[in-house]
Amino acid sequence: MFVKDQSDLVADWDRLFRVFIRPEGQVSRATLIKYMDRILYGLNDFLKTNVGITEAVSLKELSKNFTDTLIHDNPEKKLADVITCLIDNIAPHAVNVSSPYFVGHMTSAIPFFMVHLKTIVAALNQNLVKLETSKVVSIVEKQVIAKIHRMIYKHSDAFYQEHVQNTDTTLGVFVEGGTTANLTALWAARNAKFHPKAGFAGIESDGLAAAYRAYDIDRCVILVSRLGHYSLRKSAGVLGIGNQNVIPIKTAPDNRVDINVLKQTITRLKQESPRTCILAIVGIAGATETGTVDPLETLAEIAQAENAHFHVDAAWGGPTLFSKKYRYLLNGISLADSVTIDGHKQFYMPMSCGMLYLKDPTALDVIAYHSNYVNRMGSVDLGIKTLSGSREANSLILDCALKIMGAKGYALLIDHGIETAAAFAREIRRRDLFELMTPPVLNILTYRICPPDIRKKLASADDAERRKINERLNTVNRRLQQIQREAGHSFVSRTTLLQNNCSEDGIVVLRSVIMNPMTTIGILNEVLDEQEEIFCSQLKDLVE
Amino acid sequence: MFVKDQSDLVADWDRLFRVFIRPEGQVSRATLIKYMDRILYGLNDFLKTNVGITEAVSLKELSKNFTDTLIHDNPEKKLADVITCLIDNIAPHAVNVSSPYFVGHMTSAIPFFMVHLKTIVAALNQNLVKLETSKVVSIVEKQVIAKIHRMIYKHSDAFYQEHVQNTDTTLGVFVEGGTTANLTALWAARNAKFHPKAGFAGIESDGLAAAYRAYDIDRCVILVSRLGHYSLRKSAGVLGIGNQNVIPIKTAPDNRVDINVLKQTITRLKQESPRTCILAIVGIAGATETGTVDPLETLAEIAQAENAHFHVDAAWGGPTLFSKKYRYLLNGISLADSVTIDGHKQFYMPMSCGMLYLKDPTALDVIAYHSNYVNRMGSVDLGIKTLSGSREANSLILDCALKIMGAKGYALLIDHGIETAAAFAREIRRRDLFELMTPPVLNILTYRICPPDIRKKLASADDAERRKINERLNTVNRRLQQIQREAGHSFVSRTTLLQNNCSEDGIVVLRSVIMNPMTTIGILNEVLDEQEEIFCSQLKDLVE
Repeated sequence: MFVKDQSDLVADWDRLFRVFIRPEGQVSRATLIKYMDRILYGLNDFLKTNVGITEAVSLKELSKNFTDTLIHDNPEKKLADVITCLIDNIAPHAVNVSSPYFVGHMTSAIPFFMVHLKTIVAALNQNLVKLETSKVVSIVEKQVIAKIHRMIYKHSDAFYQEHVQNTDTTLGVFVEGGTTANLTALWAARNAKFHPKAGFAGIESDGLAAAYRAYDIDRCVILVSRLGHYSLRKSAGVLGIGNQNVIPIKTAPDNRVDINVLKQTITRLKQESPRTCILAIVGIAGATETGTVDPLETLAEIAQAENAHFHVDAAWGGPTLFSKKYRYLLNGISLADSVTIDGHKQFYMPMSCGMLYLKDPTALDVIAYHSNYVNRMGSVDLGIKTLSGSREANSLILDCALKIMGAKGYALLIDHGIETAAAFAREIRRRDLFELMTPPVLNILTYRICPPDIRKKLASADDAERRKINERLNTVNRRLQQIQREAGHSFVSRTTLLQNNCSEDGIVVLRSVIMNPMTTIGILNEVLDEQEEIFCSQLKDLVE
Repeated sequence: MFVKDQSDLVADWDRLFRVFIRPEGQVSRATLIKYMDRILYGLNDFLKTNVGITEAVSLKELSKNFTDTLIHDNPEKKLADVITCLIDNIAPHAVNVSSPYFVGHMTSAIPFFMVHLKTIVAALNQNLVKLETSKVVSIVEKQVIAKIHRMIYKHSDAFYQEHVQNTDTTLGVFVEGGTTANLTALWAARNAKFHPKAGFAGIESDGLAAAYRAYDIDRCVILVSRLGHYSLRKSAGVLGIGNQNVIPIKTAPDNRVDINVLKQTITRLKQESPRTCILAIVGIAGATETGTVDPLETLAEIAQAENAHFHVDAAWGGPTLFSKKYRYLLNGISLADSVTIDGHKQFYMPMSCGMLYLKDPTALDVIAYHSNYVNRMGSVDLGIKTLSGSREANSLILDCALKIMGAKGYALLIDHGIETAAAFAREIRRRDLFELMTPPVLNILTYRICPPDIRKKLASADDAERRKINERLNTVNRRLQQIQREAGHSFVSRTTLLQNNCSEDGIVVLRSVIMNPMTTIGILNEVLDEQEEIFCSQLKDLVE
């Protein structure tokens, strides 16, 4: 299935020089540009036709072609052949996340100019860990961080004049993704709580066991809605806090964290032991599964009263702030001590780009690291206060994207997503065969196939009966999602939600994320039509 | 200094559609390709002339142009203007890491095809966190990981046939960079040591304080040469172990870890407290400052005897394994429980790409995370065992690069670096004004300006006098590096090394990293000439 090895290729200095020096001659220059043309447009056929994980070739079959584990001594292919192979043999088996029919995940179409910008970043190959390998790009990064910080926190002109290019303070950091952003936030919260004092050099230096002894604590907890992203549990695990100490709080019927339960939990924790420390309370602005937004203002109040760090995970919902119409949904975000936003989600940037913003420009001082060769004390190296070391200049992409799109451009995307999701919800409600499970607040909703007669049965069923029916429905919806995905015309994802916060009542739902501006209500109707068709022709018998 | 805002631009749906749909017409298609031409070649002028951080415009002056923190409502620029601005106004103030005269850091020229490959990755925009957003690319990733694993561990055909496409096992993971790779290795080592047992659900779940109680431990230590990368301290800090528990071991005169001191330290730690756990021993394969390689075989033996995890940080030196001539320098690496290698270093890939390899394909099971919407139990999603969530397809770049370069192509680069560094060392020794501080083993060396009469004085000086002279030399070498950097013709970095492992004897040295195949001994002679010239004309008086 692959282009045959060109065994006449050899690795020698001539060839090496050719790949390192940018070709200057008109002919070779034209060749290289032709490759770019093929990359930008050769991928197009694939991008137009494929959608889901088609099983024309099953994964298992496919993987049989990728079992050779020897690196060849001499080159196997020229660049032209590599590109051909990628276009002809790899792309058709990749996932076309840019299709408007691909509405299952938070990965979607990106504006084509993003590809140009990524190319520039690669060609410059700056390393943001230190000024000596980035210079002006470090300055651009500080500026674009201040722009987004201002959108979140709306501090004064004077504040931003003081901090935008201040080499001692940090309004935010670029990181690999939302997971690293959440980890960094909790890392800083942990270190601030267990700061150095007499006989104790701080948790970062002496470790967590010594910190607990020094502060007479035996447990730290992090409180978040049970819809919180799993990266919060992972962060607590990594940080030594323990992931079982991320305490999932039940949700209210509107899928926002239940404030009463939160308060009761806090009271209970305090009663159980005075040696439990409430390290952080996390609010979600755009839950991964339901797109819902917690009551951030109330959470901020509670966090302040408990002297806990207030973190908002707005990895998904952050850019809603662009929309004059809908930004109110995030009211209270400016009260957060820290905010996670992903660039590769609703900023429509290429993988992988996350960000963390800090209310207090000195908040990250507690995670600073120095060395003799980079990040020297007092330098302006941006790597001083990041988890990572070497790091590409994604900030340059965001800076350019803001200039090309304007706040209004992003607002149009946000409004389209929210309003199309609302229209989609109306359509789901209108169709008898479907049950809307979580109505959209932002641009995410969940639903399932649940024929009207079954719904009637469910309404009057006792617990045991209800579970039995739901199990059958779960099987149906699981199969439905799989069949549709494998058919390759459209793609919704699935997840399992709890009904009434009860872990025994797991309901398999279909999940839609509307972020592609090409995804219209017409397309979503086609997705529902296909699901109805699959159900009626293949799955109907399973519900009886 | 920047292109003026085009205030006639507006954000509207027409414009949005244009940026999301790949232009199909011949005219607009030609325009987009023209942009790529400008990106690939417009950057060329800059890449040909600039080198260091020129101070024609000082950083402070420069940063004054980047203080506007308001995001404009409407678009400020079209893509064409953004590209022009990047080429005309940003690139000239960036750092030309691809110049053969830029020999100061581990960031260098990359083959131009890497830019094409990065463009493909951006255009496909696959997300490796899960199969549903990557499909075949997950399979390619598993294959290329097996290839590099095989280069390190040389297991049998049968082993690789079993694991290359095995969805339950993990030979390695792609991560953001060396820091994340080292963190992941120590995270896995920590979790393996404090695994679940009766009454204890494991450290990842219950936290570090509970783990120490369950295992009757009060301290974990990690032992590494004092030349170990600072990311190891950072990792121990993040993981709750405490960065002061990364114990720096003195080095022998050859800058490798001193095995006797290591053994003494282990004996001392055990005598001090039976409740100290030796969690890991780390060997360096290419120290950041000196390029030296620890005696890996001996370290492996010691680690095994102490039941400690043996990690090798080969972020820099790993690709030396391509060289038939020099791979012996890394003997013992196949005994490591885990190995860090960076893609953006000696694989010559664009920022940011790190990797971690595991001897035991089940070693990362202890850091696995699942959720309802991605990384479901039993799925083949690669995000199950990585620190990060969403992640771009850098594996595709490495896979293609191996095919284009061949093992021999990489070997040529490795051999060139090692042999040019050796020639550079001979030249430094030949010149009276210089003192070679750490001779190269791989392709990194350090030296300083130290005139012959001063060297004579140093040889016969007592401690106090010696320190005084060295302080003056430190000032001279610090200034020298700065003046040369600011002149913008060439760039070496500087660091501070300890003489005789004594923390009071910090010696400022100039540091060269020879990885650019265009860097010849002729160019390095020019670098030395310039340094002699700067010293004689501006700094001579400072040593007297």
